[in-house]
Amino acid sequence: MFVAKVTGSVVSTQKVDVMVGQKLMVVEPYRIEAESRETLIPTGRTFIAVDTIGAGEEDYVLITQGSSARLTDETSKLPIDAVIVGIVDTVHIESGCVYSREA
Amino acid sequence: MFVAKVTGSVVSTQKVDVMVGQKLMVVEPYRIEAESRETLIPTGRTFIAVDTIGAGEEDYVLITQGSSARLTDETSKLPIDAVIVGIVDTVHIESGCVYSREA
Amino acid sequence: MFVAKVTGSVVSTQKVDVMVGQKLMVVEPYRIEAESRETLIPTGRTFIAVDTIGAGEEDYVLITQGSSARLTDETSKLPIDAVIVGIVDTVHIESGCVYSREA
Amino acid sequence: MFVAKVTGSVVSTQKVDVMVGQKLMVVEPYRIEAESRETLIPTGRTFIAVDTIGAGEEDYVLITQGSSARLTDETSKLPIDAVIVGIVDTVHIESGCVYSREA
Amino acid sequence: MFVAKVTGSVVSTQKVDVMVGQKLMVVEPYRIEAESRETLIPTGRTFIAVDTIGAGEEDYVLITQGSSARLTDETSKLPIDAVIVGIVDTVHIESGCVYSREA
Repeated sequence: MFVAKVTGSVVSTQKVDVMVGQKLMVVEPYRIEAESRETLIPTGRTFIAVDTIGAGEEDYVLITQGSSARLTDETSKLPIDAVIVGIVDTVHIESGCVYSREA
Repeated sequence: MFVAKVTGSVVSTQKVDVMVGQKLMVVEPYRIEAESRETLIPTGRTFIAVDTIGAGEEDYVLITQGSSARLTDETSKLPIDAVIVGIVDTVHIESGCVYSREA
Repeated sequence: MFVAKVTGSVVSTQKVDVMVGQKLMVVEPYRIEAESRETLIPTGRTFIAVDTIGAGEEDYVLITQGSSARLTDETSKLPIDAVIVGIVDTVHIESGCVYSREA
Repeated sequence: MFVAKVTGSVVSTQKVDVMVGQKLMVVEPYRIEAESRETLIPTGRTFIAVDTIGAGEEDYVLITQGSSARLTDETSKLPIDAVIVGIVDTVHIESGCVYSREA
Repeated sequence: MFVAKVTGSVVSTQKVDVMVGQKLMVVEPYRIEAESRETLIPTGRTFIAVDTIGAGEEDYVLITQGSSARLTDETSKLPIDAVIVGIVDTVHIESGCVYSREA
């Protein structure tokens, strides 16, 4: 899995039937800043993930990719390869906190 | 999943039997432009995806990769790893719209 | 899937039993040249794929990766993650033909 | 699989139900330093993996990705794509030891 | 699949039970040198793969990744995503031999 920030959403009217009603979020993966190791920085990549847990923009979330994206009750029969499995509260690296939702 | 632009098509006569009749589209993944964050820009990569929903050139589409590409009625038994699951109407990032099909 | 050029072959005598008799081809993925958009250029990567349809060197082929590589009659029980599913006749991008087998 | 160092942890309260109680570790993949070939160096990437074997920070671990992350008793029904399958004691490359847990 | 050189091994005592007794090899993927096209060169990446066929250090091997790594008798229930499926005797590219085990 990886940590990503929810930065937007996608609307698609003409789509595969089973996808109707699915919430499609734009998510951007983050990684640890290599020098200071005190912050998370964007990787520059852009993915689309299905959200079933109510994530909102600006949230940092945990993304699962591949066939395992179908291992939730809501997504088991969907043609998707990425799903939001959790909203991140905190990320701790070594001695400190590099992300806190409340911060 | 990722957003990609349909830019072309592939013709293949000599192929695995079950692939006969499948529409093969050239799709190029897009990502958010990192500085302005106001447009989508190409990643420079090129994929081939099966289309079952009538996407056309210039359309921005949603691509599912991996085993989940087989989770639609039309593709369940195909040896494919990428399928178009939706035609994108809009992509919103933060405060604004970075892509609109009508634009 | 992606388009690749068949550039060679691999011989392996000591191998997993079920792989005996499988034809192993060296394939190099191609992508659209970003500036002119008039040719296909190599990505610099090298993969090995099983061939069941009689592809030869110099052919441009369509490669399927992952578990879907096992979705053909000949490969259903093989420990492989890449298979040639078609020989490419033409690739069209926007207004023109960027590859033709006869060219 | 790949070798990674456990460098932190993630807390997520609002998540998919089946993920409750899972330990989420931040892991950073390492690779062989190309010149000297005498040490492991970070790749700069950041992943999140489920831990079921009691790995701790600073440990080097073996990570399995994809659907195979579900092939352990504890993870068989989880929507995860990365799991820690072992704590690394030593990594030997060519003539020497490039990592030892006791070192 | 890809061609890789076996360059080392990993020892892990504390691990998922089903992994006991599995031989873990360090493998480094190789690719065709783009200019001369006469040699294989390392990609700089480092993977760990299970070996069931007796590969040794310095051997060039064929690696299968993903769920297909479980498609051999010995690995069908293992949480692994990479396996050695063959020891490479020769790699031919275009007019010549770029690798021979006997060379």
